[in-house]
Amino acid sequence: MSSKLPKVTGRDMRGVMAYPPTPALPGADRVDAENTVDLVETERMIRALIRDGVDAIATNGTLGEMGTLTLDEWKAFATCVAETARSEDPDFPVFVGATTLNTRDTVARMRFLSDIGVTGTLLGRPMWGDMVAPIMERFYRDVAEAVPELAIVVYDNTAAFGGVIPRSIYRSLVELPQVVAVKYAGGASVGFRYHNDMAHTGTSFPLMPIETDWFAAWEMYGEELAGMAWSSTTAMGPGPVLALRDALREGRTDDARWLTERLRWAHEPFIVGQDFFEFAKYNIPLEKIRVNAAGYMNVGQSRVPYTEDLLPEVHRGTTLEHVERYRQITAEIEARLGTSTRSAEKV
Amino acid sequence: MSSKLPKVTGRDMRGVMAYPPTPALPGADRVDAENTVDLVETERMIRALIRDGVDAIATNGTLGEMGTLTLDEWKAFATCVAETARSEDPDFPVFVGATTLNTRDTVARMRFLSDIGVTGTLLGRPMWGDMVAPIMERFYRDVAEAVPELAIVVYDNTAAFGGVIPRSIYRSLVELPQVVAVKYAGGASVGFRYHNDMAHTGTSFPLMPIETDWFAAWEMYGEELAGMAWSSTTAMGPGPVLALRDALREGRTDDARWLTERLRWAHEPFIVGQDFFEFAKYNIPLEKIRVNAAGYMNVGQSRVPYTEDLLPEVHRGTTLEHVERYRQITAEIEARLGTSTRSAEKV
Amino acid sequence: MSSKLPKVTGRDMRGVMAYPPTPALPGADRVDAENTVDLVETERMIRALIRDGVDAIATNGTLGEMGTLTLDEWKAFATCVAETARSEDPDFPVFVGATTLNTRDTVARMRFLSDIGVTGTLLGRPMWGDMVAPIMERFYRDVAEAVPELAIVVYDNTAAFGGVIPRSIYRSLVELPQVVAVKYAGGASVGFRYHNDMAHTGTSFPLMPIETDWFAAWEMYGEELAGMAWSSTTAMGPGPVLALRDALREGRTDDARWLTERLRWAHEPFIVGQDFFEFAKYNIPLEKIRVNAAGYMNVGQSRVPYTEDLLPEVHRGTTLEHVERYRQITAEIEARLGTSTRSAEKV
Amino acid sequence: MSSKLPKVTGRDMRGVMAYPPTPALPGADRVDAENTVDLVETERMIRALIRDGVDAIATNGTLGEMGTLTLDEWKAFATCVAETARSEDPDFPVFVGATTLNTRDTVARMRFLSDIGVTGTLLGRPMWGDMVAPIMERFYRDVAEAVPELAIVVYDNTAAFGGVIPRSIYRSLVELPQVVAVKYAGGASVGFRYHNDMAHTGTSFPLMPIETDWFAAWEMYGEELAGMAWSSTTAMGPGPVLALRDALREGRTDDARWLTERLRWAHEPFIVGQDFFEFAKYNIPLEKIRVNAAGYMNVGQSRVPYTEDLLPEVHRGTTLEHVERYRQITAEIEARLGTSTRSAEKV
Repeated sequence: MSSKLPKVTGRDMRGVMAYPPTPALPGADRVDAENTVDLVETERMIRALIRDGVDAIATNGTLGEMGTLTLDEWKAFATCVAETARSEDPDFPVFVGATTLNTRDTVARMRFLSDIGVTGTLLGRPMWGDMVAPIMERFYRDVAEAVPELAIVVYDNTAAFGGVIPRSIYRSLVELPQVVAVKYAGGASVGFRYHNDMAHTGTSFPLMPIETDWFAAWEMYGEELAGMAWSSTTAMGPGPVLALRDALREGRTDDARWLTERLRWAHEPFIVGQDFFEFAKYNIPLEKIRVNAAGYMNVGQSRVPYTEDLLPEVHRGTTLEHVERYRQITAEIEARLGTSTRSAEKV
Repeated sequence: MSSKLPKVTGRDMRGVMAYPPTPALPGADRVDAENTVDLVETERMIRALIRDGVDAIATNGTLGEMGTLTLDEWKAFATCVAETARSEDPDFPVFVGATTLNTRDTVARMRFLSDIGVTGTLLGRPMWGDMVAPIMERFYRDVAEAVPELAIVVYDNTAAFGGVIPRSIYRSLVELPQVVAVKYAGGASVGFRYHNDMAHTGTSFPLMPIETDWFAAWEMYGEELAGMAWSSTTAMGPGPVLALRDALREGRTDDARWLTERLRWAHEPFIVGQDFFEFAKYNIPLEKIRVNAAGYMNVGQSRVPYTEDLLPEVHRGTTLEHVERYRQITAEIEARLGTSTRSAEKV
Repeated sequence: MSSKLPKVTGRDMRGVMAYPPTPALPGADRVDAENTVDLVETERMIRALIRDGVDAIATNGTLGEMGTLTLDEWKAFATCVAETARSEDPDFPVFVGATTLNTRDTVARMRFLSDIGVTGTLLGRPMWGDMVAPIMERFYRDVAEAVPELAIVVYDNTAAFGGVIPRSIYRSLVELPQVVAVKYAGGASVGFRYHNDMAHTGTSFPLMPIETDWFAAWEMYGEELAGMAWSSTTAMGPGPVLALRDALREGRTDDARWLTERLRWAHEPFIVGQDFFEFAKYNIPLEKIRVNAAGYMNVGQSRVPYTEDLLPEVHRGTTLEHVERYRQITAEIEARLGTSTRSAEKV
Repeated sequence: MSSKLPKVTGRDMRGVMAYPPTPALPGADRVDAENTVDLVETERMIRALIRDGVDAIATNGTLGEMGTLTLDEWKAFATCVAETARSEDPDFPVFVGATTLNTRDTVARMRFLSDIGVTGTLLGRPMWGDMVAPIMERFYRDVAEAVPELAIVVYDNTAAFGGVIPRSIYRSLVELPQVVAVKYAGGASVGFRYHNDMAHTGTSFPLMPIETDWFAAWEMYGEELAGMAWSSTTAMGPGPVLALRDALREGRTDDARWLTERLRWAHEPFIVGQDFFEFAKYNIPLEKIRVNAAGYMNVGQSRVPYTEDLLPEVHRGTTLEHVERYRQITAEIEARLGTSTRSAEKV
């Protein structure tokens, strides 16, 4: 084993981990496009999220277009994210995606990330076919040992990887000090599966629920076990999600319940909660549409082959309705609770 | 429409709905067995559950062997259940299964249930192939209109019926005054799906979570929306589940959380929460083993073709470990909280 | 074991096994319908199929509405089928469905069939949840031993029963002299699966392909191994299918190829070959529509809950196009090859 | 459109397309391995296949480790394959894999292939989640238009890409002159799906069956429609497969049937035909084991994360039994039919 270890541990992971898309320049949806990352907007977006109070940032999962960026684009984006975050706060936790089709390419990406000084990687598994448990276990162990100084947020996603991480894997992941959190697969965040997976992971690292299930997880298991949530919704403006975080931390249960209800209400029209597998077919353009419409950041078009023009029109309408509701609850929340404490302090 | 309507409405459904198995006489697992229902134990079991304080009883779902009883056995069992419950409390809500392979057989069963005076039926859908939404909607409408005086607890179950009830169906079910509750399919009781289904059903009738997810649902939505839970675990002795009900009703949040944690802990070894689809292969014998081992009732063997001798040995061991834990938490709970109030009052 | 054995063995099974629907009287699609079987048409249909030359008849699978007939209707239909067949030919092989939700109900149905003197039963497995291999093996063994004088055509169907019969089961089925054929699940009739299943079954009994795959199976394995095909298409008039049988038997390979191509061409518009799982949602009304439109028999409406009015209109159109093509190839075949030999002899 | 078009068309594609693995140097299964391709063996293997008479070669599908090679390794391998094939026969058709996670990376790979002068690419689709029909259609159109001089063998694979190519896609593919063949997904090569897909593709290009289903396809559709088969089994020595090709071409039906039966018999123990989805979990090491054991080429170890040490031992045994049978039938075939004509002529 190496003496080098990540700067963060699972116990440090608390609060909201934001999952912003990768901003794209005009024309990024063309087959012959090159250097499509909007680095100016990337820098602005990272600064905004940090200044507005999110607790960590993870990029280049599915919605962050890990699959559709060229290697050069990924490097440029990762470097910009890393430098911007560092300039805001040298200790701010940043996790950049390094999911590829195999172990060695992922290790090479992780070495690059280590070199540019990011905290860690957001890491799904190779998805050329479904990966069985022994191979999955070996994969995570191999990459952790190859780049021991890089923290790992394990990325699970039913649609992307053809199933959930089997329970037995969690027994192995707790042995790796590099693993500091799991982006828990959306579905059943607070039922038997979550409980039983947590029976293996305990306080080693949080199994992060989506922000709309966070209240239930926190009410049941508390900050020690469920202290961090993931949120791609923060890319529409993190205010409502941070208000929820603050309410949870400060024990304002009624506020947390109300905020959760408002967040769920705002999501009702969005296809992700109506039919997850239909969402999964068009997830990248859907995410870009809602984020652009919300106006907190400008992430441009999604890249080939998952371009916006192939989205069924019905989904655009329901997505915009979702954005309208999010706008409404943002105003309601500010009216009732003010803006997030930490954000207020920083400004 | 008929002027006859069920005696109960969805708003009346509060508390714990117990799901006991169908007790079997010795030899009930034989191919040539006849009249296999243990009616003496049936009577004793129904009395015990009612006296110990459950709020409703539903029989003859999957674990209640709706599929493996002959018509005569089903009639004998239903009659015994109805008469026993009535003798304890004329208004006690009883729901007897009437799931068959088609509309007309189900209607005939429902007419029988109406004649013997039960409150309603626990009703899954025909499962010769998966049933699509328009057929499902028609099915529930047809049977409700055919036997309008009988209440319906809609029975959903991913493994038995090949998927969940589609969201659009809930818009139709609220139009039927006969539908008073849904035994919500286990998995994701408190995520997006539950929330969005509830956006259609509101306070018309509860989408009952399993007892181990009830705390999360109640904390979020309150008694108006999530006032009733289903529990087959009550067949191992309803004490812990009723203690949870009382804690929820009395606003003892810490107790409710602790009780939920204890119930989940007790279930950890049981295959149902480790691998639902593996559980579904052997669910009837697994249920009988845990219930018999718990000692609160004696339900005998499961009937052909789902007999106990075909259960992989590993599952028997984990089931007995689950029973041991349940015994332990029952004692812990009594030591800490005493027995359930209502039960105590009755004795 | 019993000394009574079925009158037929697997080696006797040769030719075309017709799968006609269950004729329905007007109003059979109503929820309050009773005695819905059109016994006059049943008698006429059975006579026509036998006189026109099919080699066996199987009723009450999925399309034969095993799931939607009441017990009384099933008895009336079975009796009519048995008596009609016997009056035409005392040795004509007839297999009546006895699929129910459990072993004991199936055994009771099989005893009834034995009493009325039919050759055997067409038998699927209980489908309340998916059935695993050891339970499936026990189920078939139990019913064969309980009614040893009745032959069994094992009925497999991916959509109805949630998967195919596992290979290991075939090793058990060959030990049961009652099993005389398998209605092989449609999909992959002539690939690895078929070959490897046949490595277990050999000449014990045929794994019957659908008639449109029969040529490929026969060309590869010959009459000893693939001597019988199943055909629900015969209910549209058996001529083309019997012409194929005769061509195969007489070694007229070019004719058999041409007939197969014509049969496949006629099926192209039908949803069954375009999207099997979409077909499975509406299979009963789709079958009734094509059969009624073809005019060879009049099978009336499908029964609740699978009624014709819930069929998406697009499927009606493609089904009628299929019927039109079938009509066309029937004429083409008669023009080129004359009518089936055996049929001609009989007339 | 471009005036540049591939040198081959769909009508040129006849015979056997061999699918060899990518030979690996010792240590290729290590996480820190670099430059793992055994180029000496690559050259030898390509020469052997061409000299022994295969009609085309495709590399870097699933078994060819498209997913686990680094970009540099892929380039080195592709260059070696291209140069070797050209040195044997300037017109020999070679298709090198270019499947990646997105359109632009695939286009870049295809440009490289065009530059080194290969005939075409073997091209699966991005598999980060399942790809729906409109995106799939656009993907193939985009890459064909971007590199119009490169032929495309469309690569379908249920396990790798989460389903089969929808029928509607075939209507689009025939519009692209670049598409010259489809490696048809294994399962149901000669049933309804194959027939109906072929109703769209006709003689534009062959839907290649696996060699063990080729006889059935050829018997039914003839050389015009089913003139080419794919075969990874050729990597164990192409003799038996080429003997089948010759028998088909020369109209020796009995020989073709016998050869097919022998090939299927040899495959019986191999897990691919027993349980395709179990095979898919370990397909790369399984392929390497059978190829190495057969001794026709030495392809070394499979690369991380799909390494041989994670293979369940039971699969190794059945794989070696398959190899033993293949060895036996190779001898039988030579004894009965001599070696393949074309191969004999060349030597």
